[in-house]
Amino acid sequence: MRDQLPALDGVAYLNTGTCGPVPAAALDAMQDELRFQTTRPRIGMPSYERLMGVRDRARAAASRVVGGVPDEVVLTGSTSTGVGLAVAGIDWRAGDRVLTTSEEHPGVLGPLDVLSRRHGVAVQTVEAGDVVDAVTADTRAVVLSHVLWTTGRVLDLPAIAEAAHAEEALLIVDGAQSAGNIAVDVHASDADLYAFSGQKWLLGPQGSGGLWVHPRMLDRLQPVLPSYFTFNAGAVGEYRPTAARFDPGTIDPVTLAGLAAAIEWVDGLPGGRAAWIEATAAAADRARTALRDVPRVRVVDPGGPASALIALDLDGRDPVAGAAALAEQGVLVRSIPGTSYIRVSIGAWVGADDLARLTAGLEALPAES
Amino acid sequence: MRDQLPALDGVAYLNTGTCGPVPAAALDAMQDELRFQTTRPRIGMPSYERLMGVRDRARAAASRVVGGVPDEVVLTGSTSTGVGLAVAGIDWRAGDRVLTTSEEHPGVLGPLDVLSRRHGVAVQTVEAGDVVDAVTADTRAVVLSHVLWTTGRVLDLPAIAEAAHAEEALLIVDGAQSAGNIAVDVHASDADLYAFSGQKWLLGPQGSGGLWVHPRMLDRLQPVLPSYFTFNAGAVGEYRPTAARFDPGTIDPVTLAGLAAAIEWVDGLPGGRAAWIEATAAAADRARTALRDVPRVRVVDPGGPASALIALDLDGRDPVAGAAALAEQGVLVRSIPGTSYIRVSIGAWVGADDLARLTAGLEALPAES
Repeated sequence: MRDQLPALDGVAYLNTGTCGPVPAAALDAMQDELRFQTTRPRIGMPSYERLMGVRDRARAAASRVVGGVPDEVVLTGSTSTGVGLAVAGIDWRAGDRVLTTSEEHPGVLGPLDVLSRRHGVAVQTVEAGDVVDAVTADTRAVVLSHVLWTTGRVLDLPAIAEAAHAEEALLIVDGAQSAGNIAVDVHASDADLYAFSGQKWLLGPQGSGGLWVHPRMLDRLQPVLPSYFTFNAGAVGEYRPTAARFDPGTIDPVTLAGLAAAIEWVDGLPGGRAAWIEATAAAADRARTALRDVPRVRVVDPGGPASALIALDLDGRDPVAGAAALAEQGVLVRSIPGTSYIRVSIGAWVGADDLARLTAGLEALPAES
Repeated sequence: MRDQLPALDGVAYLNTGTCGPVPAAALDAMQDELRFQTTRPRIGMPSYERLMGVRDRARAAASRVVGGVPDEVVLTGSTSTGVGLAVAGIDWRAGDRVLTTSEEHPGVLGPLDVLSRRHGVAVQTVEAGDVVDAVTADTRAVVLSHVLWTTGRVLDLPAIAEAAHAEEALLIVDGAQSAGNIAVDVHASDADLYAFSGQKWLLGPQGSGGLWVHPRMLDRLQPVLPSYFTFNAGAVGEYRPTAARFDPGTIDPVTLAGLAAAIEWVDGLPGGRAAWIEATAAAADRARTALRDVPRVRVVDPGGPASALIALDLDGRDPVAGAAALAEQGVLVRSIPGTSYIRVSIGAWVGADDLARLTAGLEALPAES
C-alpha cells in the first residue's frame, strides 16, 4: 500500500490533518484528465458529457465516504467552502444565536465571524463537552466539528443533533478531520449539513471537498453561488431536484478526477473503506502506546472519544520550534496555534518505522526552547 | 503559434466562447504542479510557500488581462462564481431594483434569479441599447455583460457606469466574453465589480477565473465564503487589506498554475497581449468578410461595436442541427439557446484554412432542417 503513496518516500508523513499523501492512482487519473483537457477540444457534446461524467463520479465517491447518496452531495473546494455555503445559504433572523465550541478551525470561525458582522447573529462559544446543555430556544444553529482539529476528540453528533432539533435549531458540521479518519454516517448522525475536505484524510487534491445536505434541507437552504449547474438543464428558472443545485460554480475536472480516484483507490483495497478506517484506528492506538513512554511528551487527553489525530504537549517547550525541529528530521507534524500542542495525524499507512522516527525525533528535541 | 495550441489539431476551433484551446506551456506548468502535489509532501512551510506563490502568480496574471493590479483581484472558479460573489456580497434593501439586459447568460441570470427569490429585489430587463436611459433612483445595481454572449456586441461600460453612479447604483460586469477577446481596462470602464473566466479567451483550465474589485468596494462588499484566506495571517478577526479577502476558499494549485501559465504565454508572445488582441480583432474582421458571401447565412448585426464573437442566422434552419452538422465536419461552433443563431468565436489563431472549412461547412448545410 505504501508503494502506492509516492509522497511517503523518505519521510514520516504525520500531517494528513493538513493534507494527505495522494495515491498514484489519483495522479494517473489527473494526468489522463489533464491530457484530455489540453490536447482535445473542450467543446461540444463529447466534452460536455465527459465533464458531467467526472462530476458524477466525484459526487458518487464523495457521498460514499460520509454514508450518503450522490443526490445529497454538493461538490466544493474545501470544508470552509462547504461551511460557508451552509451559513450563507440560511436566511437569518434578527436575534438568532449560533452555538459553537471553543476549539474550532478558521473553516468554522471565518463563516461565523462574517455572519455575526453582517447579520448581527450572536455567536456563543462553549467547551465541546457543554454543547448539549447550552442549546436553548434562541439557538438557531449549532456549528461545530465532528473531530476537533486540536485534540482529535470525536463529538457525539447524535446527542447534539437531538438537543438542537428539540429547539428547532440546525446542526451544521465541519467534517474536515472526520471523513476518511473515522467512520462517518451522516444519516445516523442526524446532521442537517455536513461539510468535508478532499485533500486531508480522503487523500484527494487541494481544492476538493463536499457538502452533504440532508434531504429535509433541500428547500430550506438557498443556493449561494448559482450558475449553470444550479438549474434544470442549465436554463435559469427551476432548481435541480438534488443537492447539486448548491454546487458553487465550476471546479477543474482534473481536480474532480483526482478526488474520485483517490476515494476509489481506498474503497478498492482489500476490505474497502471499513478496513481502512479500522487500520487507521489501530495505527493511532499503536502510536498512542509508543508515545506514552517518551520523556517530557504528554499525549493530550481529548476529553472524549479519540481519533487518529493526536495532540502532544511538550512540557513547556514551544510547539512551533518543536514541529520545525522534527521537520528537519523528516518527521512531518504541525503545531496548533493558540495551544501548547504539536499534532500528529496517524494515517492507515503509518508503521513501526514512522513511529520510531517520531519517538526518536521527540526524544532528541532540545531541553529548552 | 498554432503548434503551441495542441487542441487545434485537426479541427477548426471556433468555440473559444465556451472553452479555448489550452497552450502547451499551461499543460507543462500543470504537469509540474501536479507532480509536486502528488509526489512530495503537501505539508510544511516549503509546500505552503509554494501554494501561496502559485496563488500570487495567478492573481498577478489575472489582474494584467483586465488592466488592474493584483491586490484588486479575487481568484474564482468561473465568471458565474465572480458574479455570484458580487451579488451575494452586497447587503440588499427592500425595494432595491437591479437592471440587466435581455441578452444575458445564466452566469448573470442565475445570481439575479436567486437574488429576486431570496431578497425580493426586482430585476428589470431592458434591451442592451436602452440600459443608460433605464437607470433610475430605484436602481441599486446594473448587472450585465461587457460583451454579449449572443451577438458579441460590446457594451459602452463608461457610459453605463456614469448613468449608474449618478444614481448611486453599482455596475457589476460579466466579463466572460471580454477578457482576452477585446482590450479590457477596468479602471477606465469605471465598473465596480468585474468578473471574468479563465477557460475561455484566456485559454486557461476549467475552474479558473477572477473577480476584479474596485478599491472603493473593498469595505462595501462582504466576504461570502470566508476561509483561512480571508483573514490576515489566517487568524480570524482582521480581514486581509486586499481583494484576496473575498477569495472563496481553495482552488487546486494545478488549476491556478495553468491559468497563470496560459496568460503568461500570450503575454510573452511578440507584441504581448496588445498584439494578441489586435490579431484577434483582425481575424474576426476577416471572418466577417468571408462569411458575407455564404448563401443563406447572415452575419447578425450586433447593434453596436463588434468583437470576435460572431452570431450567424441560418435563414430559418435550426441552429442546433446546424452546429451538429458542422461538428461532423470538424468545424466546432455552438448554437445559442433562445435564438436562431449559431455562434463562432474567432481566436487570434484562426487562419484562412479555418475560415475556408467554416464557409464550406455552412455551404454544405442541408437546405431544410
